[in-house]
Amino acid sequence: MNMFDTQTEIASFTPYSIEQLPLSITLHDESLSIVWDDDHESEYHFLWLRDNCHCSECVSMLTREQVFEICDVPYTIKPSHAYITDDHRLVVEWNHEGHISKYHPGWLREHCYSKSTVEANQWKPRLWDKSSIATELPKSTFDEITQSDTQLLIWLRQLRDYGVALITKTNQAPNDLVEVANKISFIRKTNFGTIFNVKAKADANSSAYTDLRLPLHTDLPTRELQPGLQFLHCLINDASGGESILVDGFKIARYMQENHPEEFDTLRTVPMPFHNKDRQSDYRFRSTVIMTDSHGEIVEVRLANFLRGSFDVPACQTLALYRAYRCFIKLTREPRFQFFYRLKAGDLMVFDNRRVLHARNAFDLTSGSRHLQGCYVDRDELLSRIRVLERHEN
Amino acid sequence: MNMFDTQTEIASFTPYSIEQLPLSITLHDESLSIVWDDDHESEYHFLWLRDNCHCSECVSMLTREQVFEICDVPYTIKPSHAYITDDHRLVVEWNHEGHISKYHPGWLREHCYSKSTVEANQWKPRLWDKSSIATELPKSTFDEITQSDTQLLIWLRQLRDYGVALITKTNQAPNDLVEVANKISFIRKTNFGTIFNVKAKADANSSAYTDLRLPLHTDLPTRELQPGLQFLHCLINDASGGESILVDGFKIARYMQENHPEEFDTLRTVPMPFHNKDRQSDYRFRSTVIMTDSHGEIVEVRLANFLRGSFDVPACQTLALYRAYRCFIKLTREPRFQFFYRLKAGDLMVFDNRRVLHARNAFDLTSGSRHLQGCYVDRDELLSRIRVLERHEN
Repeated sequence: MNMFDTQTEIASFTPYSIEQLPLSITLHDESLSIVWDDDHESEYHFLWLRDNCHCSECVSMLTREQVFEICDVPYTIKPSHAYITDDHRLVVEWNHEGHISKYHPGWLREHCYSKSTVEANQWKPRLWDKSSIATELPKSTFDEITQSDTQLLIWLRQLRDYGVALITKTNQAPNDLVEVANKISFIRKTNFGTIFNVKAKADANSSAYTDLRLPLHTDLPTRELQPGLQFLHCLINDASGGESILVDGFKIARYMQENHPEEFDTLRTVPMPFHNKDRQSDYRFRSTVIMTDSHGEIVEVRLANFLRGSFDVPACQTLALYRAYRCFIKLTREPRFQFFYRLKAGDLMVFDNRRVLHARNAFDLTSGSRHLQGCYVDRDELLSRIRVLERHEN
Repeated sequence: MNMFDTQTEIASFTPYSIEQLPLSITLHDESLSIVWDDDHESEYHFLWLRDNCHCSECVSMLTREQVFEICDVPYTIKPSHAYITDDHRLVVEWNHEGHISKYHPGWLREHCYSKSTVEANQWKPRLWDKSSIATELPKSTFDEITQSDTQLLIWLRQLRDYGVALITKTNQAPNDLVEVANKISFIRKTNFGTIFNVKAKADANSSAYTDLRLPLHTDLPTRELQPGLQFLHCLINDASGGESILVDGFKIARYMQENHPEEFDTLRTVPMPFHNKDRQSDYRFRSTVIMTDSHGEIVEVRLANFLRGSFDVPACQTLALYRAYRCFIKLTREPRFQFFYRLKAGDLMVFDNRRVLHARNAFDLTSGSRHLQGCYVDRDELLSRIRVLERHEN
C-alpha cells in the first residue's frame, strides 16, 4: 500500500491509497476502459475524464474547488493519446487546446462508477428488532468518546449503521450533552431552541412537555428536513414510568416492503401533510412516510400521528393511504419491534430521528422527578465527521 | 363573514372565517359529500372525517395535538346519522362507540381536498428574467420592515413569490442583518458559522472567500437541505467590480421544460453527487439538479459547478447527464436571464438560495474595500412566519 501526497496530485484533502494497479487501457468511441490487476474493468466517459482533471489549471489549489467548467469544451472532446506511466498514472492528452490530464490510480479506482462498484460501496443499515438490539446495542462511555478519536469513530459508525447508540457514565452535568454533540459538529437549532429540556410543564406547546404517553414518532416531521440525530441525556429519572421505547423504522418499512408491498408502495409514493399547532409557529410540510433513494434503499421515515395535517390526496387514494398508514402504525405497536430502555442518570441515548421512532410511557410526577435534556445534530454532520476521522485512520 | 372562537370549536390556532355555507349532504358507501351555497361540491371520506374530529376527547386542548389515533377504529366506520345544524355545522354520529363529531364550516371548506380546490390553493412562483425583475424587484426600507408587521408580511410574501427582495437604508451596522433575520425566525447555522463575512482572505476554504469570479450557483448544495433564504448585507463596497448577478433558477428550469424536455427530465430524475473540499469537513450529497413536488411544480434547484463530485450514474446515463447539465449551465450564462445589481452600503439583498442562483464578478481589492455579511434562514421559517402573520391579518 502506497500513500501519495494529495496536495500536489489530487485536488482533494482525502488521501487515496493504491490497492490495485491499472494494467491496460482501451479507447472506445466515447469512453476509455481500464483493466486492473484484480481483473476488474472500469469504463470512464471522455467527458467524465475531462471533467475530473486534477491539474492546477482546472482546480484552485487554494480551495481544491474546480475552476474549469465542462460547458467550455466541445461534446466531442476525445483523447489524442492516452497511456499508463511507469508509476501507474493514467495520462490523457486531449484533442482540445492540447490539455493534458493525469490521474492517480487510487483516486481513479475509488471513483469507478461501474454498477458492481457502486453497489458494493452502497451503505447498508443494520436493521434491528427487540431481540437483536438487546444484545447488539452499541455502547461506549463518556470518557472513551470524549478522549479518543479512535473510539469516537467506532461509536459514530455504529450509530450510523444501527441508528442508535448509547453513552454511559456521563458527568451528569448539563454541559455533557453539548460536549458530545460538539465532538461531531454544531447543534441544530429549532423553534424549541438549541438545548431542550424534557420536563412536564404547565403551558406545554408540544405533547413532549406533558406527562402523557406519546405514541411512536419522529421529532419535527413538520420540518422539510427532520432533525437527524437526537440526543437525550438523562439528568434525573426518579419518577415511576417514563420508559423510553425505540423502534427501528427501517426494519418496519422493510417488513412492509416484504409482507405488505402495496401498502409500502403507497407510503413511499403518496405524500401526506404534517402540520404543527402552536401560537408562535405554523410549520407545514407534505411528504411521504417512507423515502427511498435512487438505488431503492430505504433512507428515511417520517411519522408523528399528533403532527399530521388533514390528508389532501385525490379521493381515489384516500382509503389506500389510510390503509397503508394504519398498517405502519400497527406494526410499530408490535412488541417484537419495540426496544424498551429506562434511562438512568448519566445515560446519553443518541438515535437517528429520521429512522428510529421513539416514544415514552406516561410517568407519574408524584413519585419523583424526571429531567432529560435533548438536542439535535444533522445527519450531514455525522457523515462528514466520520469521513474526516477516516482520513486519519491509517 | 363570521369569525368563530377557535379555542373551543377548532383544534387549531388558525382562525377560519365562514365564506360559504353547506346546503345539503349526501351519504355514499365510503364518503359523505356536501354541496355548498356557491355550488361547489366537497367529498369527505368517512375515515377522513373520523380522523379529523375536533372534540376534546380526540384532541388535547392544551397542545391542540391529536390524541386519537385512526388505527383504533375499524375500517368500516360509518355515520349512523349525519346532519347540518341550524348554525351550519356538520354533525356526524358514528356507528362506533357512539362518538359524535362536529365540524366548523369554515374549517371544513378550507380542508376540502377536491382536485379543483387543491389546484386553486397551489402556490405558484412568479418567474422573472432580466427585463421583468428590473421593474418588479420587491423593495422595502429597513424601517418599514422592522417597524410594521403589515409591511413585513407584504415583503415576506413578495420574497416567497419572486424568490428575491431588497431592503434599503439599513443602519449599515453589523447587527442589522440579525435584526431582519429575527423578524422571520432564528438563523440557520452552518460550518461557516451563523453570520459569515464575505471578504477576500488568504486561507480561503471556499471560493466565496477569494476575489475570484464565481459562476452562478446555489450555496451549500453539498448539504441535504440547502439553506433557504440567503441574506447579503452590504457594509462596504468601494472596490471596483464585484457586481452581484442573480438568475431565477425556476425560470431556467421552466424554460428547459418547455424547450428542452429531455434535458429537463434528466435533471429532474438523475441524481449527481455534490461534494465540498475542506480540511475540517467532508459533506457529500446526491441529488437531482431540479426538484418537482407531487403536483409537478418546480420547487428547488441545486447547482454549483465547483462543488460537484464525480458523476456516478450508470455509463448509459453519463452522456445524457452531461448534456442536460451543460444545457442548464449555458442557459444561466445567457444575459436575458441575468439580473445585475451592484450592492451599495446599506442594501440588504435576500433571495431564496434554493431557487435563485447567484454569482459575483471578480473584484479588484487594490481599488477599495468590499465587505458583505451574510446569513441563512430556512424556507420552513419563512413560510411559518407568513402563516402566523396572516392569522392576525383580518
